[in-house]
Amino acid sequence: MSDAPIGVFDSGVGGLTVLRELLAALPCERFVYLGDTARLPYGTKSAETVARYACQAATALVGRGVKYLVVACNTASSVGLPAIRERVPGVPVIGVIEPGAQAACAASRSGHIAVIATEGTVRGGAYQQAILRCRRDARVSARAAPLFVALAEEGMCDGTIAREVARHYLEPLFGRPAGETPDTLVLGCTHFPLLAGPIRAVVGSDVAIVDSAATTARAVREALRAAGIERRSGNGSVTFLATDGRERFARVGGHFLGRDIDPREVELIDL
Amino acid sequence: MSDAPIGVFDSGVGGLTVLRELLAALPCERFVYLGDTARLPYGTKSAETVARYACQAATALVGRGVKYLVVACNTASSVGLPAIRERVPGVPVIGVIEPGAQAACAASRSGHIAVIATEGTVRGGAYQQAILRCRRDARVSARAAPLFVALAEEGMCDGTIAREVARHYLEPLFGRPAGETPDTLVLGCTHFPLLAGPIRAVVGSDVAIVDSAATTARAVREALRAAGIERRSGNGSVTFLATDGRERFARVGGHFLGRDIDPREVELIDL
Repeated sequence: MSDAPIGVFDSGVGGLTVLRELLAALPCERFVYLGDTARLPYGTKSAETVARYACQAATALVGRGVKYLVVACNTASSVGLPAIRERVPGVPVIGVIEPGAQAACAASRSGHIAVIATEGTVRGGAYQQAILRCRRDARVSARAAPLFVALAEEGMCDGTIAREVARHYLEPLFGRPAGETPDTLVLGCTHFPLLAGPIRAVVGSDVAIVDSAATTARAVREALRAAGIERRSGNGSVTFLATDGRERFARVGGHFLGRDIDPREVELIDL
Repeated sequence: MSDAPIGVFDSGVGGLTVLRELLAALPCERFVYLGDTARLPYGTKSAETVARYACQAATALVGRGVKYLVVACNTASSVGLPAIRERVPGVPVIGVIEPGAQAACAASRSGHIAVIATEGTVRGGAYQQAILRCRRDARVSARAAPLFVALAEEGMCDGTIAREVARHYLEPLFGRPAGETPDTLVLGCTHFPLLAGPIRAVVGSDVAIVDSAATTARAVREALRAAGIERRSGNGSVTFLATDGRERFARVGGHFLGRDIDPREVELIDL
């Protein structure tokens, strides 16, 4: 069982920021990463459609014999987890919302936490609820920041446009008198860590910026250890699956994973 | 036959700019507009996937008894027309590329024509080929401008960010010595007419800006007349079909159509 792979699922390549942390935390594990590139993005789609697509992806990964399933997509984690768990009852499933909310609550002194995410994640309210479950005195300001997704996909992660877009989304939250601004910002979409530079320039150095990737990786490691199914020796590996566009997956995905991906490493599948 | 509806298909709401011109040109016709909102955007997807999705949409519209099919999506027109025509052999099909190319060739004095479009449309090369078929001395400079799609969807069609993005994409084409710049710009994506303001500000007043919407509408009218199947009396109508997200279709689509859409007007279908 410990030799079985870990499935990681995302709407596209954004979840590779989560895979990157998983690889660092669990170097002996075998990973199967599935990006639903034929139907991305999920962030602008309805909860029902996202849940349906996510269940199909989960079924495909369970068909590859995974021992654990990581939903690396914030939108799918936000609106699809109950449906996914129902669909694959034999496999433990973790999303990125709970770990991200816990990281935010640990980082915040004042309890005033801002969340930027896709339209679907904000509308679903999962971050807001997870933060309040973890810390009842929290005050959450959530805002959709959809242009960040397009900027990260285009690799336009610094420069004038990225700075102006960061100001557009973040000044309404952070450009206020001291005492009224959040002290913590959750990057509630796997694309957003690539824009950490311009985001930091707007929010200033006193705000804690947290994302779910590292926290999720730690949570997965703890869960595998608790269940006695961590792979503790041997070389790790990654298999890439995508539903469309090998070349684009490799080209854009490389930025997110932090290493080059060869298009020949990417296997196309139908969902 | 003349009472049968005209099918209009797009990946989402962008094609409503084409529908708007069709409604003006053909006020007595009944239209069925289908936006594949569950799987948009097409512009970043592979040619094979776009063609497959477009064929499913064409089949659904033919199932509604359409007499004519307009592929209002530039990307689907660019890479999917042969496959669509094969799938629905009994129904005439028009795309937006040929009419747009003809409009550009008519507008250009120098024959140097720029095209901005999605990644898929530019990679497919259909505009480049259609322009050269229409005018053998033409010189075509094509460039993908994917952020324009996100800006138009967000309604961010003027202001600093839209201007900076327009400069980013267009200065490499138009910020050159006189004599080396195109005299005509094709807006090769249905989203781009919404950004005409900032685009005009970069290219200057001497460049002809053309899009496919009005030319396509005229071509459809001519074809219906030639076939003797134009509906010449009675009130026109529009039926909206979408594969996801009634509320978003109505909210975002209203900008593109130029009139309010009530979410209850939108019928959800599966493809």
